[in-house]
Formats: sequence, C-alpha cells, structure tokens
Amino acid sequence: MAQRPDPVAPADDAARAQARALLALPHAALAFRDPEEGSPGISRIAFGLGHDGQMLTLISALAVHHAALRADPACALLLGEPGPKGDPLIHPRLMIRATAGFVTDPDDRSSLRAAWLTTHPKARLYIDFADFAFVRFTPVSLLLNGGFGKAFRLMPGDLSQ
Amino acid sequence: MAQRPDPVAPADDAARAQARALLALPHAALAFRDPEEGSPGISRIAFGLGHDGQMLTLISALAVHHAALRADPACALLLGEPGPKGDPLIHPRLMIRATAGFVTDPDDRSSLRAAWLTTHPKARLYIDFADFAFVRFTPVSLLLNGGFGKAFRLMPGDLSQ
Repeated sequence: MAQRPDPVAPADDAARAQARALLALPHAALAFRDPEEGSPGISRIAFGLGHDGQMLTLISALAVHHAALRADPACALLLGEPGPKGDPLIHPRLMIRATAGFVTDPDDRSSLRAAWLTTHPKARLYIDFADFAFVRFTPVSLLLNGGFGKAFRLMPGDLSQ
Repeated sequence: MAQRPDPVAPADDAARAQARALLALPHAALAFRDPEEGSPGISRIAFGLGHDGQMLTLISALAVHHAALRADPACALLLGEPGPKGDPLIHPRLMIRATAGFVTDPDDRSSLRAAWLTTHPKARLYIDFADFAFVRFTPVSLLLNGGFGKAFRLMPGDLSQ
C-alpha cells in the first residue's frame, strides 16, 4: 500500500503563537480512562497556567475524573472552542497528551492558589474546600489544528515564550 | 470508611430536557483510545442527530480519531460549552459514554447525508470526499452536569422525546 502523505506539519512560529494563545483559555475538555473499565471518559475542567507556564487544573474529589487520574495519570486535553458561526471544524484547537500529577506539598499548593485566583477569580468560592486539589499536567505531545489542512505537531519546548 | 453520599441524582424531567437541548449542538469533544499506545486521545468533532435521534459524526480518514475508532469503538462525547462569562464549571454539559460504528451501507449513508446537510450546511464542501465517513454513536450511559451539585445520571431511553 502506498504511503499516505503525513497530514501534520512541523510547528512554525505562527503555530507556536496560536498554541500559546489557546493555552490562555480558562477551561478545557479532559479525556481519561475509566478506573474500573478502562474505557474512555471525558469531562469539562477548569484550566490555567501557573508559574513557568505549567498547565494546571483544580478539581473536586467528587468529580469522576478525580478518581480516574489518581488511578491512571495518562490523559489528554482539548483547548479551544468553536464560535457561533461557520463550520465548527475550522476553529483552532489544541490537543495535548499529558500525564497528570496531584499537588500535595502545602507550599506548592499555596503558590498555585495565588496564581490560580488571578485567572479564575470565581474559584474563590470553593478553592479552599477540603476536597479540591490542584493537578499539574506534564505535556507529552501536542497537536494544533488550525482548520482543514492546517495541522501542526508541537513539542513541549515549543510552548516557551 | 463511611459511605460518601452519591453526588449524582437520577434524571428528572428538567434534566432530560436540558440533555436533549445539549444534543442539538453541532459539535462535541470526543475521547478515544490511541490505537497504538492505548492512552487517552481527544478531538473536536462535528456532531448531529439523524432520524430517530441517533447520534452522528462525519469524519475524515485523515483525522487521528478515525483510526482510533476503527481499532476500538469505545469512546466518550462531551457536549456543551461555557459561555464567555462566569465560572466555566457552572455551564451545563453532557458526557456520553458510547460505542462508535462506521456507516458502510450506501443507502444508509445517503439518508444520513440528507439529514446532516440540514444541520451542517457548510459540510457540503467536503461531505462527498472519498475519505469522509459517517459514524453512529450508540450511547451506553450519560451524565448531565448542570453546575455545581447538579449532576444527573441518564439512560439512553431518557433521550426520547
């Protein structure tokens, strides 16, 4: 069988800038594995960047994905939303394969808490509840889709300013 | 250890109506398993309902999730988007665990094509490309999250009008 052309291009400066802009969004979709069945699960999560651009979320122990990420840290994030007009698939979005790590150190948490509230002020209502924990995502690989025929592969180092 | 109260309630009429409203959205996030590594993957997809309320997407063979769903039909969908205001987690969203089936019968495809174009008119640009296929999602279970403390479990039968 003939080799198909790779539809994904290496990142260029415009792709890197677009990816960084998507990382400023305050929420994401999270894909994970169900801890019991192993089948795919999905949730909406809050999303933010901490110091040094580290990717973060703040999640409740009541959320389905909390137990899932505790059992299996492999996950994927989708950032970017279609606007109300046009084909939803022409709007840019960023897919990130990552591993999730729960933040347990109190000083670490305290520093993340301050950074989080600057971008998610409404989280003040629940950020100090005992069942809420910060999770840091370490990106493994990234795919930017800027619309039909505009897919780019990024490496974690591409996200540095 | 004391049993925690179940944070998810059985569906009521309001939850069923909200779920049906979310199913009218033209796009979704799709969680799947990477065909090589088994790790979670995520993509934006077009979404629509066919005859009898069946859940559908139209995907290109170039998309990452095409090969993934061919290899493993277990997947999950997220419908619903935060608006620009307020905490993104107060906006309603529907999580659907499903199995994906590719539509191969030409008559079936022809009928789905007509229905799809009424809700996704811009798909006319590519719907007849040889690498585009319809995929039908059969729901296994549904979770509606209408905001903090407002989670409901739905069964596929709850979606009938």
